[in-house]
Amino acid sequence: MYSKIKEFKTLKSVDESLNLMFKSLKGIRLSTCMVPAPLSLNNFSAMDVFAKFDVPSFNRSAVDGYAVLSSDLVSSSVTNPTRLEVVQEVFANSNPNKLRPNSHGEASVVYTGAPIPPGADAVVMVEDTKIEGSKVMVYRPVSPQQNVSKKGEDFRTGAIVLKKRTLIKPWHIAALLSTGNQNVCVYNKLKIGVLSTGSELSDQPSDSDNPIVDTTRPLILSLAKENFCEAVDLGIVSDDLDKIASSIKDALRMVDMVITTGGTSVGSSDLVKEAVLSLGNSSIVFHGVRMRPGRPTGLALVKGKPVFMLSGYPVAAFTGFEVFVKKALDHLRGPASFPYQTVPALLSRRLAKPVGVKAFVRVKVSKGDKGVFIAEPLRLTGSGLLSTLTNGDGLVVIDEDLEGYDEGDKVDVSLLKPI
Amino acid sequence: MYSKIKEFKTLKSVDESLNLMFKSLKGIRLSTCMVPAPLSLNNFSAMDVFAKFDVPSFNRSAVDGYAVLSSDLVSSSVTNPTRLEVVQEVFANSNPNKLRPNSHGEASVVYTGAPIPPGADAVVMVEDTKIEGSKVMVYRPVSPQQNVSKKGEDFRTGAIVLKKRTLIKPWHIAALLSTGNQNVCVYNKLKIGVLSTGSELSDQPSDSDNPIVDTTRPLILSLAKENFCEAVDLGIVSDDLDKIASSIKDALRMVDMVITTGGTSVGSSDLVKEAVLSLGNSSIVFHGVRMRPGRPTGLALVKGKPVFMLSGYPVAAFTGFEVFVKKALDHLRGPASFPYQTVPALLSRRLAKPVGVKAFVRVKVSKGDKGVFIAEPLRLTGSGLLSTLTNGDGLVVIDEDLEGYDEGDKVDVSLLKPI
Repeated sequence: MYSKIKEFKTLKSVDESLNLMFKSLKGIRLSTCMVPAPLSLNNFSAMDVFAKFDVPSFNRSAVDGYAVLSSDLVSSSVTNPTRLEVVQEVFANSNPNKLRPNSHGEASVVYTGAPIPPGADAVVMVEDTKIEGSKVMVYRPVSPQQNVSKKGEDFRTGAIVLKKRTLIKPWHIAALLSTGNQNVCVYNKLKIGVLSTGSELSDQPSDSDNPIVDTTRPLILSLAKENFCEAVDLGIVSDDLDKIASSIKDALRMVDMVITTGGTSVGSSDLVKEAVLSLGNSSIVFHGVRMRPGRPTGLALVKGKPVFMLSGYPVAAFTGFEVFVKKALDHLRGPASFPYQTVPALLSRRLAKPVGVKAFVRVKVSKGDKGVFIAEPLRLTGSGLLSTLTNGDGLVVIDEDLEGYDEGDKVDVSLLKPI
Repeated sequence: MYSKIKEFKTLKSVDESLNLMFKSLKGIRLSTCMVPAPLSLNNFSAMDVFAKFDVPSFNRSAVDGYAVLSSDLVSSSVTNPTRLEVVQEVFANSNPNKLRPNSHGEASVVYTGAPIPPGADAVVMVEDTKIEGSKVMVYRPVSPQQNVSKKGEDFRTGAIVLKKRTLIKPWHIAALLSTGNQNVCVYNKLKIGVLSTGSELSDQPSDSDNPIVDTTRPLILSLAKENFCEAVDLGIVSDDLDKIASSIKDALRMVDMVITTGGTSVGSSDLVKEAVLSLGNSSIVFHGVRMRPGRPTGLALVKGKPVFMLSGYPVAAFTGFEVFVKKALDHLRGPASFPYQTVPALLSRRLAKPVGVKAFVRVKVSKGDKGVFIAEPLRLTGSGLLSTLTNGDGLVVIDEDLEGYDEGDKVDVSLLKPI
C-alpha cells in the first residue's frame, strides 16, 4: 500500500563511493581554449607554461644607488670613504646596450630596475653615500653582485612558470606576462546545470500549490560559481518521471555535468535514479552513502557525463557537494583551493552517532578559558536547517568507526568562516 | 646634479600608517543597491536582514517514517511491537491545514519535510517499523518531538538572517530565500582604478622604447578582482607630472579608489606624490613605510577618495596591497575573507634585517624529518622578482623590533597556497 516508504538496501561508505567516482571520471577529457593572460584569473591552466626569455633580461639594480666596481671599495669605511667620479645616470628605461662602461674609480647613478653598466659588478645603496659635486663619497664596501638582480635570476629561458592544472592566481598572471606569455591555454570553465525536483517546490514564497521555497538549487548554483564553474539554472521540475528525464537529457546537450536535488531518497519519490536509467547509455556509479547528512547522495554517468544526485535538503545537499562534487572538480581540473582551515576545540556536549556512518556535524565555535576553543554542536533536527550553516562556524567530521565523541573531547573543526 | 637620488626623510611604522589610514577613511560612505538574493554572491550586505516568517512554517518531519502519538509507544520493543492503524500518507507538498488529525492507535505515513498531522507529536523512523497491510508494527518507543523539525526552529519571525557588512556566501543566499527575502541590500562593488606610471613600461614585450613589460598593473587589477572589487584598467602613463595628475583626476570621476604603481620611490622619479598634491583638495595620509618590500608605499586622500601609491615592483606592490589596501577594503565593507592559514616551520637558514623595519619574506615550505615543516627563505635580490611568489608557498613576517631569526628558529608561515 505504501510501497514507496522503504530503506536503502545497500549503502556504500564515503571512501568506497569516492573510489567509484574517481574511476567513473577517468574517461572525461576537458576542452581547452587560449585566453589573454590578464583575463585568466581563476581559470585552470591546461598546459605547462615556460619562460620565453630570461627575466630580468639584463643585470639590473635592485636598489637606488651607485653602480661600482666592488674591488674599488675594499677599504671603504665611515672614517675612510672612497671617492668615485660619477660618470652617468642610468634609468630603468635606459638601453642596456648603450651604456658607458664603468672603469676603476668611476660610479654610475642607477635607479631601482636600471641596467648595470659594463665593468660595474655591484651597487652601493644611496644611504651609504654622499654626493659632492661630480663625485660621490662611499662609506662602506660591497661584495661582488651585491644589490644586483642577475639576468635570468627571476626566470631562466625555458624555466617553468605555470604548471598544468594550476588555479591561476594574480601572481601567475604577472609571471606569465613577464616571461613573454601573453596568452595562456586553460580548460574551458566547467558548465554545471542544476535541476531541482519536487512538486512541493516554488521560487516564490506564498505559492499555495507549491508551498516550499526552493533554497537548495540557489545554494548549489552559488557553490558551483564559488568553485570556478559556470552555473546553469535548470529550474524546478515536478515529481514526474518523464519530465525529470527530459530535463536531464536536454541539459546534457549543453552542460558538462548535471546536479539534481531532491527525489533521490528511497523513502520519498525515488524518481531521479529511474529517470537517469531511462535515458540509455547510463549507469549508476553509486547511490546511497553511509554519511549524514547526505545519505541519499548518488552519482550516475549518462552519455559519459556525470549526473550528481543530491538530497533536496539544503544542508544534506551542501554536504554532498563538499564531499563529492568538489573532489570531482579537483580531479578533472586540478586542485581548486585550500582545504578548510582547521582549529582544535573541545566539545561542549556529547555527540553520538551510529557506527558505520560518517557524520558531518555543524558546530559553533567560541573562545573558552585560557584561549581554548569550545565547539558547540548545533542541536537541531534535520538536514534542512540552513541556520546551522549561517550560525555555525564549521564542521566536525566523525569517522565511520567511531560511536561519537564525549563532552570535553578534543576535535578538529573545519572552519567555514573566520572566527 | 643628481638631485633625485635621495633617501626618504621620514618613514612611519606599519602600525602608525594603518592608524592614519583608518582615520582618513572615516568620512567615506559606500553607496548601496538592492539585488536579487540569487545574484548577491560575494557582495557585502549593507543592512541587517531578518526572517519575514517562521521557518519551517509548520511542524515537519525530519525523516521518512510514521507520525505517531509518542504516548502510544511507551512499551514498544522488538519483542513487544505496537500495532498502529495507518490512516493517511502525507507528502512534503501536502497542505498542513487539510490533514486528518491522528488519534490514539493511529499513524500517518510522513516523508521527510512533510507536515505533522494534528494530534501526532513525534515520528518513528521507517527503519524501526514493518508494514503489514493497513497496519504498521513499531519496534521501539519515541520521545515527544523526536524527528520533528518544529515551526520556527530554523528561523523565527524577526530573527536575524544576515548581519550588515557580511560577505554573502552560498548558504546566506539560501537562508535569505527561505525567510522571504527575495532581494537584499548590498554595497555597490567598490570600483578600483589601477594606473601604472613609468616611461620604461609597456604592455608589449620587445617594445624597444619601453623595454619593461608592466606586470605590476595586471597583478594589482587581479588582486582587486580577487577581493570582490570592480577593477578598472587605467593603463600606463609616462613619468610626466601633468599626465599623471590628469589621469588620476579623470579616474576619480568614475572610481571609488585609485591605486598607482611606480613613481613613488623618493629615489626614482617621485612624481605621483607631486601629481596628487597638484590636484587640490588633496592631502598625503602617509608616504614611506618602515617595511620591506614596500618601503615607498603611500596613501593620499583626493577629493575624499583614497589614492594608494604602491611600488612599481610587483612583490613590493603585492605587499603594499596585502598590508594596506585589503585592510582598507575590510574597513569599508566588512571583513572579506579568512586570514591566511598559517603553519609553524623551522627556518632553513638565518634571516637578518635592520631593526625598526617590518619584513615580509617569501619562503618555500617542505616537509622535513618527523613531519616538521621547513621554511626556506627565497634568496633573491629585489622586490621585482615574481618567482618568489610563484615558487614560494608563503610569507614570514618579521616584526620591527627583531633583528631577524636564526637558522632553526620556529616561525609562522602565512600560506599563499596549499602545501
